[in-house]
Amino acid sequence: MLVVQKYGGSSVGDLDRIRVVADRCARRRRAGDDLVVVVSAMAGQTDHLISMANELVTTSQSESDGQWISSARVGDNAHQRELSQLMSTGEKVSAALLSMALNEAGCPAASLVGHQLGLRTDRQFTNARITGIEQSQVRRELDKGRVVVCAGFQGLDPEGNITTLGRGGSDTSAVAMAVAIGADVCEILTDVDGVYTTDPRVVSDARKIPRICYEEMIELASLGTKVLQIRSVEFAMKYGVAVHVRSSLNTNEGTMIVPEDESMEKVVVRGVALDRSEAKVTVTNCPDVPGTVAKLFGVLGRAGVVVDMIIQNASRSRRTDVTFTVPRADLTSSVEQLSQIDFIADDAEVGVLSDPEISKISIVGVGMRSHTGVAARAFEALANEGINVQMVSTSEIKVSVVVAAKYGELALRALHDAFGLAEAPRGADGG
Amino acid sequence: MLVVQKYGGSSVGDLDRIRVVADRCARRRRAGDDLVVVVSAMAGQTDHLISMANELVTTSQSESDGQWISSARVGDNAHQRELSQLMSTGEKVSAALLSMALNEAGCPAASLVGHQLGLRTDRQFTNARITGIEQSQVRRELDKGRVVVCAGFQGLDPEGNITTLGRGGSDTSAVAMAVAIGADVCEILTDVDGVYTTDPRVVSDARKIPRICYEEMIELASLGTKVLQIRSVEFAMKYGVAVHVRSSLNTNEGTMIVPEDESMEKVVVRGVALDRSEAKVTVTNCPDVPGTVAKLFGVLGRAGVVVDMIIQNASRSRRTDVTFTVPRADLTSSVEQLSQIDFIADDAEVGVLSDPEISKISIVGVGMRSHTGVAARAFEALANEGINVQMVSTSEIKVSVVVAAKYGELALRALHDAFGLAEAPRGADGG
Repeated sequence: MLVVQKYGGSSVGDLDRIRVVADRCARRRRAGDDLVVVVSAMAGQTDHLISMANELVTTSQSESDGQWISSARVGDNAHQRELSQLMSTGEKVSAALLSMALNEAGCPAASLVGHQLGLRTDRQFTNARITGIEQSQVRRELDKGRVVVCAGFQGLDPEGNITTLGRGGSDTSAVAMAVAIGADVCEILTDVDGVYTTDPRVVSDARKIPRICYEEMIELASLGTKVLQIRSVEFAMKYGVAVHVRSSLNTNEGTMIVPEDESMEKVVVRGVALDRSEAKVTVTNCPDVPGTVAKLFGVLGRAGVVVDMIIQNASRSRRTDVTFTVPRADLTSSVEQLSQIDFIADDAEVGVLSDPEISKISIVGVGMRSHTGVAARAFEALANEGINVQMVSTSEIKVSVVVAAKYGELALRALHDAFGLAEAPRGADGG
Repeated sequence: MLVVQKYGGSSVGDLDRIRVVADRCARRRRAGDDLVVVVSAMAGQTDHLISMANELVTTSQSESDGQWISSARVGDNAHQRELSQLMSTGEKVSAALLSMALNEAGCPAASLVGHQLGLRTDRQFTNARITGIEQSQVRRELDKGRVVVCAGFQGLDPEGNITTLGRGGSDTSAVAMAVAIGADVCEILTDVDGVYTTDPRVVSDARKIPRICYEEMIELASLGTKVLQIRSVEFAMKYGVAVHVRSSLNTNEGTMIVPEDESMEKVVVRGVALDRSEAKVTVTNCPDVPGTVAKLFGVLGRAGVVVDMIIQNASRSRRTDVTFTVPRADLTSSVEQLSQIDFIADDAEVGVLSDPEISKISIVGVGMRSHTGVAARAFEALANEGINVQMVSTSEIKVSVVVAAKYGELALRALHDAFGLAEAPRGADGG
């Protein structure tokens, strides 16, 4: 079997842990599998590098004297380039160390970093997108019987500049490598056992999901981001590579993230997720004429605010209320931006209300496509607990509700119960 | 003017010092010079990386089980490769940070590291020799008006593996870069003001030498190694590039290391150097037959011992004494090796004597070629102080003497005085 494994920063956080990882990899190799290992920087290293960069940029004085382009203009792209060149060294260090530990354990290994990886990206220095992988050097090392240890998180742009893939980019590196070399599976080794039906810290009987499809995993983003970068799942989905999220501390099976198959639809709800990061905004008594809503979201879009749920009430008497959610961190600036829109600033009847005290709960499952009544069952479960639903939005495989923040955890438990997520589903091996 | 500058690890030892270097480079750039800057790793960083590698290799257990190549055999080359991949990250970090600091100061800059440098080497991972430089990327950045900040110490072998040039390799990187781009001068910025007529810590009236030729600099290695790697001087000599050793703490002129010119011969002695790192070995009563001496030095050569001075007394009665010096650290093993040679082990008349308590003083100057009597003047000066000369060897531009270690510093002062090195030479602008 050809396997790509990815170990995160805490798994290679010090030399002892690197030895543990080397031992695990060596045993896997000995069992007969061909192995490509992608590593993150040692825990804390990337933050250390970024803090050095920040200190240089915030405290030094710009000495522009007309003859020179001002710091702000030089900055941006040039700084992002250097930041990538700088940050990429973290993964280079852990890759070389792990490779050494493998060689020392008698398991031939070679690290591949930077230009050796053949990982091509666009020119977005610190948030680059992968455009392709030349797998020749990885293949060459595999053919020599070596474990190939790849520095994650980094690639090269068309000019040969080092780019980085953004936080969590090593997951994406690993999936991309798995795609390029046609690996049988991409294993993401982490400090949790897999993906759960909901957050086990909130719901004690949350259950590990043995198999989940890409679409569900993406919709359960807030469960998933603690485990792996959603971007890597999108990449895996695009190319159909199986991702296995499992613990680096034991050899238990974790969660397989795979293409949807028939058995999966037998399970209506795969998991429920709680998101406490949003806030609610209502613009009341908007003039109900064409262009109003476009104006609202145009302003927010230009300000870089990502709007999530949007609800517009049915029109009554040429006025309408528009309610939506934004990241809580952007609430103040969003309200400010909105207040400057002409029809809001000039019309005393129009108001902007905001409420940071909300929670969003999402119920996710591909089985919803063929089952009806999920929303009704959710409302009933919430009503039984006396929880008022403030907003609802539905997609093909997801129902999201907004409730008062103080009811968030209670609502999550109620929904986890209502859909029987604590018990393994009968019949469906897909879990 | 096109200038290559090299800053060592202490000059970029922390973020404040990096800002100071950036400021210096920015001023130089503003004054109109095109600038390529080569940096070492931040002080201590290379040692930190090596110590991690050593810990991994010395404490982990080899788990060879027959199926796997044993650690020792995997080791060597594979380990050296990883060590280079690892160590090279130190210079990458300082290059990116200095480039950031330059951009922040409004002076456009770009770092070039690893594959971007175009510096090609042989396959000797941690002690690679430069085989060539593709200057295209450096040129491209210079043409954009940028200061080019190069990570020192590293190159690529023909397979694209990262190699490192051995300790002090950043000096060699800088000189090689100067050769490749046809720089007017390669400045080595360091924490001393230049090259002195002798060690100022031993001789208080040692004088800074304004100009010295490559050959003299190489012969004065023991003065020079504190200042710059002799290997870089050999490289500079081969390609005739001027090297300027100067302080990173002020803008004083330092020492220009240049091709020999006529004015230089007017100065008989350029400097005197004290070397306390050697020990003396005498093999007494050797059979004076062909092959004896070859046997002695063959054994030492195979043991990796570098023999420096060799003296063989004129033969008397078919027996001869052979005296030579070896690094003091190799003295014990040298004596052991020699004792196993057949004609020494089997012949009670032959003995091996050793003396670690010696100092070697070298008197260097290209002017010796056209002046006689240097050795005589040296002996006279030493005799005046009651110092016995144990060994002498001479080359075209050097006289070396061995004296008892306790007289080393006194001998150095006596010779510095005898050749009038404290005073600037009259007439010769070469100093």
